[in-house]
Amino acid sequence: MATLFHNNVNKSSFNPSDTAGKIISCNAAVVRGPNQQFLIEQIRVDPPKTMEVRIKILYTSICHTDLSAWQGENEAQRAYPRILGHEAVGVVESVGEGVTDLKEGDHVIPIFNGECGHCVYCNRRTTNLCEKYRVNPFKKAMTNDGKCRFWTKDGEPIFHFLNTSTFTEYSVLDSACVVKIDSNSPLKKMSLLSCGVSTGVGAAWNVADVQAGSSVAIFGLGALGLAVAEGARARGVSKIVGVDINPDKFIKGKAMGISEFLNPNDGGKPVHERIREMTGGGVDYSFECVGNLDVLREAFLATHDGWGKTVLIGIYPSPNLLPIHPMELFDGRSIIGTVFGGYKGKTQLPDLVQDCMRGVVNLDGFITHELPFEKINQAFELLIDGKALRCVLRLPYAEIME
Amino acid sequence: MATLFHNNVNKSSFNPSDTAGKIISCNAAVVRGPNQQFLIEQIRVDPPKTMEVRIKILYTSICHTDLSAWQGENEAQRAYPRILGHEAVGVVESVGEGVTDLKEGDHVIPIFNGECGHCVYCNRRTTNLCEKYRVNPFKKAMTNDGKCRFWTKDGEPIFHFLNTSTFTEYSVLDSACVVKIDSNSPLKKMSLLSCGVSTGVGAAWNVADVQAGSSVAIFGLGALGLAVAEGARARGVSKIVGVDINPDKFIKGKAMGISEFLNPNDGGKPVHERIREMTGGGVDYSFECVGNLDVLREAFLATHDGWGKTVLIGIYPSPNLLPIHPMELFDGRSIIGTVFGGYKGKTQLPDLVQDCMRGVVNLDGFITHELPFEKINQAFELLIDGKALRCVLRLPYAEIME
Repeated sequence: MATLFHNNVNKSSFNPSDTAGKIISCNAAVVRGPNQQFLIEQIRVDPPKTMEVRIKILYTSICHTDLSAWQGENEAQRAYPRILGHEAVGVVESVGEGVTDLKEGDHVIPIFNGECGHCVYCNRRTTNLCEKYRVNPFKKAMTNDGKCRFWTKDGEPIFHFLNTSTFTEYSVLDSACVVKIDSNSPLKKMSLLSCGVSTGVGAAWNVADVQAGSSVAIFGLGALGLAVAEGARARGVSKIVGVDINPDKFIKGKAMGISEFLNPNDGGKPVHERIREMTGGGVDYSFECVGNLDVLREAFLATHDGWGKTVLIGIYPSPNLLPIHPMELFDGRSIIGTVFGGYKGKTQLPDLVQDCMRGVVNLDGFITHELPFEKINQAFELLIDGKALRCVLRLPYAEIME
Repeated sequence: MATLFHNNVNKSSFNPSDTAGKIISCNAAVVRGPNQQFLIEQIRVDPPKTMEVRIKILYTSICHTDLSAWQGENEAQRAYPRILGHEAVGVVESVGEGVTDLKEGDHVIPIFNGECGHCVYCNRRTTNLCEKYRVNPFKKAMTNDGKCRFWTKDGEPIFHFLNTSTFTEYSVLDSACVVKIDSNSPLKKMSLLSCGVSTGVGAAWNVADVQAGSSVAIFGLGALGLAVAEGARARGVSKIVGVDINPDKFIKGKAMGISEFLNPNDGGKPVHERIREMTGGGVDYSFECVGNLDVLREAFLATHDGWGKTVLIGIYPSPNLLPIHPMELFDGRSIIGTVFGGYKGKTQLPDLVQDCMRGVVNLDGFITHELPFEKINQAFELLIDGKALRCVLRLPYAEIME
């Protein structure tokens, strides 16, 4: 059943009018067990049902959440066979009944944290957690009917992932999880807005609300941390301190505007003390992009008392609780968690796309590698080895679009 | 040396012009060891030094922080002999060199969390923690010279408490810790603004920023909790749920606008589940006024996901850390600590005084008992027995002023 990837689809056959309402056969990278190599298989993709959208993926990029899901770090992630992937850019192939804000041919990005636009949460300015389509690691099928839209050639259902599933030529998503973007935007880079860059920039803009002239410390200089840096730089902060145990990250960070670097393994005083000394008592904002509780505590203490704000972006697999005593909150430091940078995807991301197109946010530098889709296993190795910030996988139809 | 209280001071001798620049002999309630009865002793009070103010106390009220200090709950509190007390209203007797914003005869309230008006913190809108005069439980002498302004008749120094020390006829404070109030304000009630009512109302207004039509849960219905309720009521919230294990508190709470009551000891589901059921998923804001970590967790979980805000007001003697997992912050609930309700005392309390005078905030009901100063031990018993919300002690000079 599993085959090596072969681009055996005649591209001209992707004309929307030919496929709308029909099952599409295409290739997908299917994972069948924790840490098992992706196999490129020919799968069948159902047409979209009510309020769903079928999109043709042009580019998809790989985020650490894909990596931890691939490794099956927790029970929720262990559902097989499954199509992972949640960062991508694509074109609408067809829409299901009731979808009025999207149409065939629209350029779109999937979002793992959807926005129905109608629930009590969507109607509230201060949250981006939709009642129905918020990020849910346990979800593995469509909301409509609890069934999959992906099938093996033998009729076995293939599970969905994070409202998105982008490691495939075609995917079906709830329309709440599909954002229309400017058709003139640079497609490949837009994949970054599906998760990493939006989360980092949004953490700086929407959650911390960093102010011009302020100081920032970023713990963990992967794509997320660097996106925070880019958001902070765009807001005109005066100092960005980057913290990472991998000295290689410093080179990239410096090129992207981080002004000072600290390696916790360099010895000496704890990082928070060194940051306090460098910044006259602590930074105004700190960002924890690692998902480690010791790092979280350093990030918390690195902020200035009275007003310091720590934003949590990492995922914390440890069962341990927050390493903060309640009385420490009386010193005026606060801590806040965020999903997707606080962005309400459908209503607010189009503005971020414009900011990227105008150069307010600079996406250059985030994409360090590009490979054809069939080299997905190689792309994961690059991420595991810490060599790639973002590796973008190019799907067959991309060549026609660009 | 210690004597029973006797009002042996000729009131007419309190004319400021007679005492300015001189040592004053007067009575004070001195504590000489944990849980030891207050003894009314004749003490000597030095004139105020640079940027200090000597005030004549008219009324002083008793807060739970006085109680825990009297009980010597922690090392910082065990400094003897000492004059406790931090809620009061008084009249300026004289001012030290450099004090320009206060003068003899001004009606004032002491604040334990001072405001110098010049430091990096005071210049920042978002904190009320002054660099020099913020609340400091370890402080026991004046900032100027590290010495006491109180002396026993035998020349032994008597320690200060919380920037204030109000269980005395005269006290010396840093001018940063003295707030001028409207001379037409009802003096006795103004004592409540020194701590409890400002902290509670400020927690609702400044820290949570409760909105009209929203819902609130208050854990612990002492004076602090009821002040939160009063602040919430004044803002026009639609529902206030009060939680306490003492059913007697419910009667008072109801009279003060709390619409629903819950007693955790009534059995059944956890309080947060009951609150979620009563409020369509949780309250918008919760306030932890007890200082207990289990209660803190209930207060946190009682808020609505997506936007719920929990404000910590209680003091947490337990060494245990926050009973919250970092991933729980990703559900959009937040937690924040506050000192003195976020009020910058000198600049913002005069407005609160006006709000009280106009009836925006209703102080009726907070003062449940009034006793002459010499009955201070009886007043403490009322608080220990949970019978008093606030017991106000009347000092000799009050009779002349009112």
